[in-house]
Amino acid sequence: MKQKLFYTATAIFFILSAILHYSGASATVQITICSAAVILLAAFLGRATENVAHYAGERMGGFLNATFGNAAELIIAIFLVKEGLFDMVKASITGSIIGNMLFVLGLSVFMGGLKFKIQKFNELLAGHNASLMLLAVIVLFIPAVFARDFEPRQVDALSLIVAGILIIAYILWLVFSMITHKNELSEIVPTNTVESHEQAHWSKGFSIVMLVVATVMVAFISEWLVGNLEEFTHRFGLSELFVGAFLIAIIGNAAEHSAAVFLAMKNKIGAAVEIAVGSSLQIALFVSPVLVFISFFFGDIMDIVFTTYELVAIGVAAFIAISISRDGKTNWYEGLLLIFVYIILGVAFFMA
Amino acid sequence: MKQKLFYTATAIFFILSAILHYSGASATVQITICSAAVILLAAFLGRATENVAHYAGERMGGFLNATFGNAAELIIAIFLVKEGLFDMVKASITGSIIGNMLFVLGLSVFMGGLKFKIQKFNELLAGHNASLMLLAVIVLFIPAVFARDFEPRQVDALSLIVAGILIIAYILWLVFSMITHKNELSEIVPTNTVESHEQAHWSKGFSIVMLVVATVMVAFISEWLVGNLEEFTHRFGLSELFVGAFLIAIIGNAAEHSAAVFLAMKNKIGAAVEIAVGSSLQIALFVSPVLVFISFFFGDIMDIVFTTYELVAIGVAAFIAISISRDGKTNWYEGLLLIFVYIILGVAFFMA
Amino acid sequence: MKQKLFYTATAIFFILSAILHYSGASATVQITICSAAVILLAAFLGRATENVAHYAGERMGGFLNATFGNAAELIIAIFLVKEGLFDMVKASITGSIIGNMLFVLGLSVFMGGLKFKIQKFNELLAGHNASLMLLAVIVLFIPAVFARDFEPRQVDALSLIVAGILIIAYILWLVFSMITHKNELSEIVPTNTVESHEQAHWSKGFSIVMLVVATVMVAFISEWLVGNLEEFTHRFGLSELFVGAFLIAIIGNAAEHSAAVFLAMKNKIGAAVEIAVGSSLQIALFVSPVLVFISFFFGDIMDIVFTTYELVAIGVAAFIAISISRDGKTNWYEGLLLIFVYIILGVAFFMA
Repeated sequence: MKQKLFYTATAIFFILSAILHYSGASATVQITICSAAVILLAAFLGRATENVAHYAGERMGGFLNATFGNAAELIIAIFLVKEGLFDMVKASITGSIIGNMLFVLGLSVFMGGLKFKIQKFNELLAGHNASLMLLAVIVLFIPAVFARDFEPRQVDALSLIVAGILIIAYILWLVFSMITHKNELSEIVPTNTVESHEQAHWSKGFSIVMLVVATVMVAFISEWLVGNLEEFTHRFGLSELFVGAFLIAIIGNAAEHSAAVFLAMKNKIGAAVEIAVGSSLQIALFVSPVLVFISFFFGDIMDIVFTTYELVAIGVAAFIAISISRDGKTNWYEGLLLIFVYIILGVAFFMA
Repeated sequence: MKQKLFYTATAIFFILSAILHYSGASATVQITICSAAVILLAAFLGRATENVAHYAGERMGGFLNATFGNAAELIIAIFLVKEGLFDMVKASITGSIIGNMLFVLGLSVFMGGLKFKIQKFNELLAGHNASLMLLAVIVLFIPAVFARDFEPRQVDALSLIVAGILIIAYILWLVFSMITHKNELSEIVPTNTVESHEQAHWSKGFSIVMLVVATVMVAFISEWLVGNLEEFTHRFGLSELFVGAFLIAIIGNAAEHSAAVFLAMKNKIGAAVEIAVGSSLQIALFVSPVLVFISFFFGDIMDIVFTTYELVAIGVAAFIAISISRDGKTNWYEGLLLIFVYIILGVAFFMA
Repeated sequence: MKQKLFYTATAIFFILSAILHYSGASATVQITICSAAVILLAAFLGRATENVAHYAGERMGGFLNATFGNAAELIIAIFLVKEGLFDMVKASITGSIIGNMLFVLGLSVFMGGLKFKIQKFNELLAGHNASLMLLAVIVLFIPAVFARDFEPRQVDALSLIVAGILIIAYILWLVFSMITHKNELSEIVPTNTVESHEQAHWSKGFSIVMLVVATVMVAFISEWLVGNLEEFTHRFGLSELFVGAFLIAIIGNAAEHSAAVFLAMKNKIGAAVEIAVGSSLQIALFVSPVLVFISFFFGDIMDIVFTTYELVAIGVAAFIAISISRDGKTNWYEGLLLIFVYIILGVAFFMA
């Protein structure tokens, strides 16, 4: 009964948001209704992820959640690349990486930590995540250092080569983590997990279909929200860097973010980490280099050279996230530390 | 009997130092007597800390020792801020941070390691200390990067916001480490601790009173020593940066430093780490931002932008201290590594 | 029988290489024959190391292998210092450090990981290696930062002092790891080690003599190979930095590198790590400062200030190697990550 009400409400708010968007309602009205829809969709997405995780493990659930979410972002980014808006693409890549590593991870760890004293996830996975984060930082750092003395042609070549290596590294990471060392990286199911006994599990196929449906709905609603947001923010004279790296990253991913928090509060911190860190790694090691290649096919190469501010933000985010997640144990204070660093970066970007 | 002699000697040398100081005796005479007094006071302070630790645990003992010690430094710094000597304040903050992280920690670990093969302290605490050190580095690093393109008004605003966040982070750290996760962070008492059976423990109240008395005496004697030192060093034409960041930091904190070493040699490495690392974190995350706010009330804001040299020194100190303390185990060689880095920084600052 | 054939082949190819070298045969012919000799010598060197390790432990075996190998490089570097070719010396130091930390370690871990799911080595040693790598980075980083504002005379003084401290630190590291904490750092022999039962172990004395013989042969053949290589590369217009830091480092150390891989594939990852990481630490902390002092005795001091590119390369290599080796466990993917970073650095240096 309660279930039915929830799904009906989600559907109604989604349809309402669509009507308001295409009828061109005022931004304030749209944002209000869309926000309500996002909250409902977040719970829907979280439930779908949880059901997939029931069959495929926490990691695979988190991975699919992150992948479907990033697929939507990739599509938007391709349009921006086509129009040659490289700076905006890089700002949004930066925003996605630090938003996931600091804000989503931080909020999940904090909220989960309020309910559970110490939450644990696979230590070996934590170590590999740390090494991959470091790889992402290194790979953005090297072109930035060398590009200063390079000619544009050389920078393009270096960007393509680096992008190619990253894509290979990411694909092999999937081979490693999903095939050859799947068991070593899987979560030990905590005994005190709050299993939702009241609700029956969906079937395997239905779970995946629902995850896709939820992701598509989330992609649309995020798009509408961000569209309104831009109108709003330009009125307040916010810088493009701040809007791209912070506002769009937060609001455009609100539903995925809430799903991670939702899972952490159910003591499924492993799935939450996979969504947060897994998503940021996917963007750094796969989405970003794919965009470089796509720009190459469009004829004008987007190099992989980020600004100093963006590099500092990504580097700082990676180092504090590594320091906190390394031991595979989390608590509320560690979540706060991540959020504090995110706020400080936000303030600095806002002023820049 | 032996005890009485010790306390009498401590009192006599303290009074003698006071007389020499206020009668304006020659610097050489003052330094000699003061140094003797410092050695006696260090033992006194160590004993008081140990007694407090007996009742409240090693961490609380170390924390109170660090806090009382830093209170004295805070008072001196406030006078400097009032006079607008911001560069000197920042140099002394830098000196306190690296002095504690490298010299005090290094000497404690080294001396403790000569007596005990491997010394252990709480691993979870080590991890959190590492994350907090990293936060301190990040928080000094971000303003330094962004401030280059900012107007002074913006730098001030950023400094105040960052300072506010740091104070909140530090207060919540106390809540976390002293209240919500106190047990998780407490020391496992090593079985081979050399308990001083010959001397009875003081009462709880008396222990705290003695800790305060010892700290006040230490504050006075440090002040007198530093006063003479400045006369001395100016004669030798030493740079302000070197004097502020090294000489004052070492000599002005000689007693606290000795107390940490004294505890490490009794296999109470947990208390020693708390004094050394805890003290440097308190300065970075609490004393330093409080001084920013105090400068704000005095009308002229001291920004939180440190020089490149200071940033490099703090960053380098934090990284090597994190690398060495992270596993919660220490040995003599690790202590030496910290001291070597301190010496190299000292030489570089001396030449700068 | 099989044994005899192997030693005979090794001797023949070595002598053949010598004849071709001194008779001035064409580069292509020389490189072909030398390469075959290197492969045979690598197996010989690996076997000798293994035999020494049988008596003295994996660490001592790896250490002696690394030391003899570096002795040859030191001799070559002394001649370069004498001729004042400081830039080439620093490029080759950089190349040796990153070649060992990324390429040799990476290839060993990768090849070992293909055969064994997870390979383990002493965790305490991993932690100390990490701290020493960090020391190496710090010690190259500080002079680079301060030297910008220093006069040449000051840079020389700083270089000598830093070099002196490094040599002391390295000697004390040997005292620590070979004497006071030898047992704590020794390998737990893995039970599934593929012991070569078919071949009898050499005697203790004979093992060491063979290690020396193998190293001397390797030094000669490497020298001949590199000589030809330079001719080759100049024809293709490669930059001195790339040739010094990559080509010479790879080809000049091919035999040692192969020996490390050979040991890793026998599940003796501890010995492989000792060769790879131990060798790079020996170069950074001992060979490099010794060269500074030698330059001092030749009258013209080689300062310890590396270029930005070299610093970035060493820093990046150390951070990723630390991240991957820290937990004392390795797998094939971690090996690949190291190799990927090496390739990216190689591409950047090639273009620079």
